[in-house]
Amino acid sequence: MTRESTVLQNRKVVLASRPDGNPKEDNFRIETGEAAEPGPGEMLVRVRAISMEPAIRGWLDDNDKNYFEPIPIGGTLMALSMGQVVKSNLEGYDPGDFVRGLMGWEDYTIVNADTVLLTKLDIAADMPLTYYVGVLGGSGQTPIVGLDVIGRMKPGETVVMSAAVGAVGHIGAQYAKHKGCRVVGIAGGPEKCRIALDEMGYDAVIDYKSTDDLDAAIREACPEGVDIYYDNVGGPTLDAMFNNMNTFGRIVCCGMIAGYNRADDPPPLYNAWQIVTRELELKGFLLYSYGEHLDAALETNIDGLRSGWLNYRENKMVGIANAPRLFCELMSGRTVGKSVLEMDLPERAD
Amino acid sequence: MTRESTVLQNRKVVLASRPDGNPKEDNFRIETGEAAEPGPGEMLVRVRAISMEPAIRGWLDDNDKNYFEPIPIGGTLMALSMGQVVKSNLEGYDPGDFVRGLMGWEDYTIVNADTVLLTKLDIAADMPLTYYVGVLGGSGQTPIVGLDVIGRMKPGETVVMSAAVGAVGHIGAQYAKHKGCRVVGIAGGPEKCRIALDEMGYDAVIDYKSTDDLDAAIREACPEGVDIYYDNVGGPTLDAMFNNMNTFGRIVCCGMIAGYNRADDPPPLYNAWQIVTRELELKGFLLYSYGEHLDAALETNIDGLRSGWLNYRENKMVGIANAPRLFCELMSGRTVGKSVLEMDLPERAD
Repeated sequence: MTRESTVLQNRKVVLASRPDGNPKEDNFRIETGEAAEPGPGEMLVRVRAISMEPAIRGWLDDNDKNYFEPIPIGGTLMALSMGQVVKSNLEGYDPGDFVRGLMGWEDYTIVNADTVLLTKLDIAADMPLTYYVGVLGGSGQTPIVGLDVIGRMKPGETVVMSAAVGAVGHIGAQYAKHKGCRVVGIAGGPEKCRIALDEMGYDAVIDYKSTDDLDAAIREACPEGVDIYYDNVGGPTLDAMFNNMNTFGRIVCCGMIAGYNRADDPPPLYNAWQIVTRELELKGFLLYSYGEHLDAALETNIDGLRSGWLNYRENKMVGIANAPRLFCELMSGRTVGKSVLEMDLPERAD
Repeated sequence: MTRESTVLQNRKVVLASRPDGNPKEDNFRIETGEAAEPGPGEMLVRVRAISMEPAIRGWLDDNDKNYFEPIPIGGTLMALSMGQVVKSNLEGYDPGDFVRGLMGWEDYTIVNADTVLLTKLDIAADMPLTYYVGVLGGSGQTPIVGLDVIGRMKPGETVVMSAAVGAVGHIGAQYAKHKGCRVVGIAGGPEKCRIALDEMGYDAVIDYKSTDDLDAAIREACPEGVDIYYDNVGGPTLDAMFNNMNTFGRIVCCGMIAGYNRADDPPPLYNAWQIVTRELELKGFLLYSYGEHLDAALETNIDGLRSGWLNYRENKMVGIANAPRLFCELMSGRTVGKSVLEMDLPERAD
């Protein structure tokens, strides 16, 4: 027998060109090569699940207005991902460990102590791996922290959720309902509205695509006004919400997807004057700034899944070849639930 | 001798027509008649000083988006005012007492227990009466509460103040400076900027009228970014500030005068996305919701005046005939300091 060295084939998704508006699949390209060898203080991680998030859209533009550096042309796409350690030169991590962090869209990725959001994961036996980049990851923890810590949600309040059937929205809505709030969703199209009502526990849902007076539609759906608006979209929806908030209402600013596809031409807001007259509080937040609340939020969602108050919806595709399509569909606004890519098994020579 | 009844002549300013955009003097009319007799539970107050405030502009429009009811055509203008009790049928108030509250723009006004913000005043011997609707009233207390309670201001932070030489701005700026902050003002025109630098203690001032890139001008004046933006104007200034805030920056939303003269066509905001990326907090506030902080704010400003760290600037006119002009000048943006009307002595028959 010949002794073969361990050669791992690696496929990765790189940025072929910068999208103009909605990203298209040909903005991306898949390249194949050999996996890197981890150097001192590094480890090689086999990526198992990739979280597709609207925030990634910002990294594709070449500007300085986002919270990560832009990805260069030809650079590997990045995402919050989870995977399993294959080789480790990093103290405290061993082959077989599950980790989460900002990783490349690739089969095998190099991770070190500086990897953004690097965390070792304790995988529960009854939970799929992909859940750890969804309901048991950032998009699940975000609405819990947003409603509790930023929104200071109290039972009996009226909570409005935009992107109602989205990754963050459908979890936040069910949590708010579980905590005794009245929960109203805003979504686009009859199918999403039906899903929101039938599967996600909303008390009422507004189809923003079927109304030409969103302001009035919100007023009708929220006769007692709105105490918390959990904003995932910004733009005209946020603008209409300003006119429907109760005094001392809180607006949890989690994302403003309405502007992501056109960062140079974001939709205008006209009603911000209501911040003063209604004494509103708007607070932007990124989950990573609230580390001390993450464990409790994770426990909340595990409890929700096990005890049944939380109906988690995954929009899952399998295989790295589908990564560009999944991301483009997410950014087109057509998806329901949390978009996650489950990686297929790469070729291995060992 | 004939015994004459006490007949008090009363002049009042009424709304002749609703302004379209900037108010003009002919939107107002002065009417003369006899002062009312206070009924049970009422008192008659001789108005001594009227606070001219941009918020009044909102009450002149016939819409439901403001925090007071619109003033009807022919109705008496209202303002935060202070005066002296002439006759009282109200328990706890005696002739000679000084009171403040929402009163008519008139010589003699009826006040009762439901009068908005009714407060008995303790006039310090060394303070002019007009100060009690200015630096020792709402416009003086507002920036203190806004910076301390809403903005959670800390020494060493960079504070930006719009409407830098205005009623609220010039007091807030000097307070922030007194508390060890670096204070940058935004004002319109070279004369205002000179006053801000020479008389109001600003470290730097931006003339928004002389720049076509306010965003860059702020960046240059605030090389370490902005921790607190005290917003009196909204509109394009607020929009430019979004791009200059530090992470976790606070925007104290005190007023958005940019839209007051054209409530149906407010200036748009495009950069609200920065609320998320920079994790900003915006909080609208009306002083009257923070009653427990008023006494301390008053003491702060009395201390400032007596010990000299606070250079208070009054834009005072005397005589009710000047009320419309004073208000129109305020709303045109030409004024410096706190606009206050000192009432002249009405004719009396007693």
